[in-house]
Amino acid sequence: MTIDTQAVRKAILTPVVITSLIVGLLVGVITFGIVLRPDVTSMGNSQYNRPYPMPHQYWATTDEFYMFASGGQQGGFYVYGIPSMKYLSEIPIFATDQAWGWTPENPEVRNMFTNPWTGEIVERGDTHHPSMSRTDGVYDGRWIFINDKMYGRVARVGLDTFRADEVVWMPNITGGVHGFSVGPNTELAVLNIEHEQVPDQVIQEHLGIEVDRINGPYVAGFNGIAIDGLPGGDGTMEVAWQVWGPWHHDMARIGWGVSDGWIINTSYNSERALSAVPMFGREYDYLYFWNIASIEKAIADGKYVTTEQAPDVAVISWKDVEVYMTKIPLNPHGLDISPTGKYILTSGKATTLIVAVDMDMVLEAIESSDFQGEELEVPILTTDSVRAASMDLGLGPTHIEFDNNGFAYVGFFVDSDAKTVPLGGPYIEKHGMEPWKVVDVLPAHYSIGHISIPGGDSAQPYGKYFIAMNKLAKDTFLPHGPLITESHELFSIDEQPAVLIDQMALGPETHYSQGIPVSMITPNVRGVYTLPAETEPPRVEYDYENQVTDVYMDVVRSWFTPDMFTVPQGWQVNIHMTSQEQAMDITHGLAVDNYNVNTSIDPGEIKTIEFIADKDGVHWFYCMWFCSELHMEMRGRMIVIPQDEWNAEYEWSPS
Amino acid sequence: MTIDTQAVRKAILTPVVITSLIVGLLVGVITFGIVLRPDVTSMGNSQYNRPYPMPHQYWATTDEFYMFASGGQQGGFYVYGIPSMKYLSEIPIFATDQAWGWTPENPEVRNMFTNPWTGEIVERGDTHHPSMSRTDGVYDGRWIFINDKMYGRVARVGLDTFRADEVVWMPNITGGVHGFSVGPNTELAVLNIEHEQVPDQVIQEHLGIEVDRINGPYVAGFNGIAIDGLPGGDGTMEVAWQVWGPWHHDMARIGWGVSDGWIINTSYNSERALSAVPMFGREYDYLYFWNIASIEKAIADGKYVTTEQAPDVAVISWKDVEVYMTKIPLNPHGLDISPTGKYILTSGKATTLIVAVDMDMVLEAIESSDFQGEELEVPILTTDSVRAASMDLGLGPTHIEFDNNGFAYVGFFVDSDAKTVPLGGPYIEKHGMEPWKVVDVLPAHYSIGHISIPGGDSAQPYGKYFIAMNKLAKDTFLPHGPLITESHELFSIDEQPAVLIDQMALGPETHYSQGIPVSMITPNVRGVYTLPAETEPPRVEYDYENQVTDVYMDVVRSWFTPDMFTVPQGWQVNIHMTSQEQAMDITHGLAVDNYNVNTSIDPGEIKTIEFIADKDGVHWFYCMWFCSELHMEMRGRMIVIPQDEWNAEYEWSPS
Repeated sequence: MTIDTQAVRKAILTPVVITSLIVGLLVGVITFGIVLRPDVTSMGNSQYNRPYPMPHQYWATTDEFYMFASGGQQGGFYVYGIPSMKYLSEIPIFATDQAWGWTPENPEVRNMFTNPWTGEIVERGDTHHPSMSRTDGVYDGRWIFINDKMYGRVARVGLDTFRADEVVWMPNITGGVHGFSVGPNTELAVLNIEHEQVPDQVIQEHLGIEVDRINGPYVAGFNGIAIDGLPGGDGTMEVAWQVWGPWHHDMARIGWGVSDGWIINTSYNSERALSAVPMFGREYDYLYFWNIASIEKAIADGKYVTTEQAPDVAVISWKDVEVYMTKIPLNPHGLDISPTGKYILTSGKATTLIVAVDMDMVLEAIESSDFQGEELEVPILTTDSVRAASMDLGLGPTHIEFDNNGFAYVGFFVDSDAKTVPLGGPYIEKHGMEPWKVVDVLPAHYSIGHISIPGGDSAQPYGKYFIAMNKLAKDTFLPHGPLITESHELFSIDEQPAVLIDQMALGPETHYSQGIPVSMITPNVRGVYTLPAETEPPRVEYDYENQVTDVYMDVVRSWFTPDMFTVPQGWQVNIHMTSQEQAMDITHGLAVDNYNVNTSIDPGEIKTIEFIADKDGVHWFYCMWFCSELHMEMRGRMIVIPQDEWNAEYEWSPS
Repeated sequence: MTIDTQAVRKAILTPVVITSLIVGLLVGVITFGIVLRPDVTSMGNSQYNRPYPMPHQYWATTDEFYMFASGGQQGGFYVYGIPSMKYLSEIPIFATDQAWGWTPENPEVRNMFTNPWTGEIVERGDTHHPSMSRTDGVYDGRWIFINDKMYGRVARVGLDTFRADEVVWMPNITGGVHGFSVGPNTELAVLNIEHEQVPDQVIQEHLGIEVDRINGPYVAGFNGIAIDGLPGGDGTMEVAWQVWGPWHHDMARIGWGVSDGWIINTSYNSERALSAVPMFGREYDYLYFWNIASIEKAIADGKYVTTEQAPDVAVISWKDVEVYMTKIPLNPHGLDISPTGKYILTSGKATTLIVAVDMDMVLEAIESSDFQGEELEVPILTTDSVRAASMDLGLGPTHIEFDNNGFAYVGFFVDSDAKTVPLGGPYIEKHGMEPWKVVDVLPAHYSIGHISIPGGDSAQPYGKYFIAMNKLAKDTFLPHGPLITESHELFSIDEQPAVLIDQMALGPETHYSQGIPVSMITPNVRGVYTLPAETEPPRVEYDYENQVTDVYMDVVRSWFTPDMFTVPQGWQVNIHMTSQEQAMDITHGLAVDNYNVNTSIDPGEIKTIEFIADKDGVHWFYCMWFCSELHMEMRGRMIVIPQDEWNAEYEWSPS
């Protein structure tokens, strides 16, 4: 066969053929794109696909935010990545957590566990509200603070080591705190007393309220914690004052921007009831505005008392400070401030109503004494004079977060969804929509408790993602017994309607969580602790007077030095370990057979473990972190000799 | 402009135009398919993609296996799904874990924590080797058993409730156990003593070995636990016997199939050394074969002693049972049996060698007394007479698993990979390859400790997936401080080369893990506990003689009944809670402010919490599980009255 190339050339040049080629091309593209191409919806051909095969470091290089999730009864934090929804770590704080080596055998942990007034070692806790350190109202990535609801403790966690390193205890109370919030420059934190108390007689007298332990009326208030948190500060915390009054408070915020200088909090029990049903006794409760300068002035003016337990903490009566309140429908809880500090959104959780209070209007109403009466000497701001909006949005509203585009997101426990609402006022130019109307509904599985948008409680939300922290998960994952873990659901909110991207389970029980950009954390994360130039030489010392054996022990792959020591039965043993490792991820452990001791030691860490050698005989200790191929041989012996057999010849000596 | 339709029709009909259309179509398809279409390799267009948007229940409906991962120093289990690699839950066992309500304030937990001989409450543990219940060598989905290395305890976990419900303690030892294995019909389990001991004088005399507590030689052995685990059994465990001898043992297996009737274990310290370096003193150690019938015969023949601590547990000398051993290169650890029971693969962890011992050859060598000498009265099987293969595969071999296609997988700590090797003998017909040669290498990040294939230690591996449990994760996820969590890597092994599908992090520190098909677990999972027809009526009882207050409390959304009770200071308080919930996922909690008490109560559960009311005053208790919109109001008061103020009028009465 021969080809008439001239004819072909001519044919190719005709417009009809060119058109035909183009038509064919388009039909081909469309056919492949629509008919032959895999279904992008069901196959998930999106930016959130994971690659197949998976390259190593995929998860480390694609995450955009860290999420620090309050652990609730876990007692510390869970940490995960967004959008990977990959669990990263936990940060134990208020509860013993052996997995993380967080046990009171370590004196540093024991010190954080120890009630400073009673000496009790408290190994249980209930972390609630995390609050990132911030500068000018914007997250600065230095620390995250969190409170323990059961005991009224606050901890500071360094975002370099992911470890708690200071705990302060609130005096004069018996636990039962709730809302916690750090101020816009990490100079002050406020911690609310949720569970009403019978305080010290001195406090009762100062308030002029006599409290009967059975019948009340109980009193409550909030704690002010001074933090050395301005730029250059080391984050040291000190309880500075307590304001006490007739009402308990649950959620707390320290304002910024328009609301700068004010502590804003709620009460769901303005009825001052002592059991659940009467706490729903009237159709409204209050949102409170406390002027911080007036608290400082009360102290400067000497209008305070102190207690024997806390001689340095000023106890102030609500009557001696500037405070206002406004009515909010039945049992409010959620309380969140928009990025500029202008709007305070709060929800009556036993209603369908979300109220937007305008701080500019509040300040004007205060200025003009626009009150509609008072209760227990506190002026009530006229409802209509301070509300920007009252929205009927759905059943069981909980918390509110804000994005970077002028939207508020409200979580609903009963409706099992979150609703997106454009903010009014100056935010309208961001979104160009009619404000205060629902524009999107994000379905949740199921029963949202808290919600989070990175930076969503600050002057600079980062937006992009919304996380629903659901209290019920039921059928979301494989069944796993009667105790069902929580679910976190990730939505993309760069688009409307928002899109559900992923779901993950976490252990019991996350509360409020904060997301922060990866770029603010990773440069400061420490992989190893720096060893001092000289470390303790390995040795064993016997203190006969105090009946203490001090063991100075080097720990390195894969030996303990010394790997044998003797101790008279009944003595205290202090093992002072120095990890001579300087390689990342080479954590060792020290478990003592039959001795209820099990802890970890990170690379370069210096750590002490203390216990009583109460059982005689040979007790092996071993590294329970798989540290090297020779890991199982990394063990040694503690030989406990009965005191009546002990003599100085049994003392360990370097061989 | 007019169109010459005739000309168009003619032009359309020409072969050149038709060809042009076809060419265009093909170019279009190819262009879109190759150039314009998203890169399917990097975008992950595979069966493992997640859909976008994500439909609810995606993760619940796509998982194929549950993974039960031994938690190590976490003290229990982690549970996740495969292939989702989604964390599902944890199962606390040997260590206090407040997140899961697993605290000794609950007498059932305290009972499991209590050393039966000393009464000590042991709140730390180190879970090591899980072992699924099985029938005829095949997983049957009833229970999973696991041991605590620190204390020599074994627990049974029901795979219906995902909760531990029985713990047995090994007598005569001071902890330091390691390998644990359940027999092919869940009738017997074996638990090795890894850390050499100074046993009771009775045992020393029976063995004819006098042990000096400082200089040794120490002795060890293994425990036999009888289980009521044949079909219809309730899983009750009882320590039946201990075999003691000169050597410690680490990994343990009870054989099946070809190796039925034998306990097979290893020792990395056949040197009987007392510190790490000399444990590497000689170039070989041993693999041991213990005839189970000979242990039973020794007991029947009265060749045992008992101790004062455990009068019901027969202590047997290694000299009175049938035992053989064979040399394995330097410090073996991994020890795994192929699905038919024929091959025992073991690795010298300080070498590059994997040895395949053939059980048929072992039985023949025993039959023909083919020994190459003996040590401490134990015959040594002639090396060449029992080895099917000795493979030089890589640095730092750890453990071995098997798939359903006749392949063995070996993990390497130093090489940071796993190698796939076809088995010989009867397995050749499955894979048709030359046996005992590496056919695939699975890269790990980094330093594999344990590995797992669903069913991979049983007579019926399910295959399909391989999980590398890496000891180092370093850069796999976002950095999170000096304590870096572990990584689990999922590979598809339905194809060769295997493909890395996903990576996940888990808390410290997973050891061996077992995967089981979803279909064997989900039908039996309980979402709620069934309440008895009559439950305790709510009330408070005062026992003046014993100084105990019993509070019978109903718990239901969202009230405690009673929500107030009084107690004289110093008395014990027993709160007997009944959850009246019968809805899935409605778990409540009981936290007592200032009282170090924090626990959970699942739907339909009946649970007691005991503590001493040592602090006077008003102490709120509250539900710390977000259980309903009225959750925060779900609280009540314990009022502790000093004894000198107490009188019967303070007694709580129904109002």
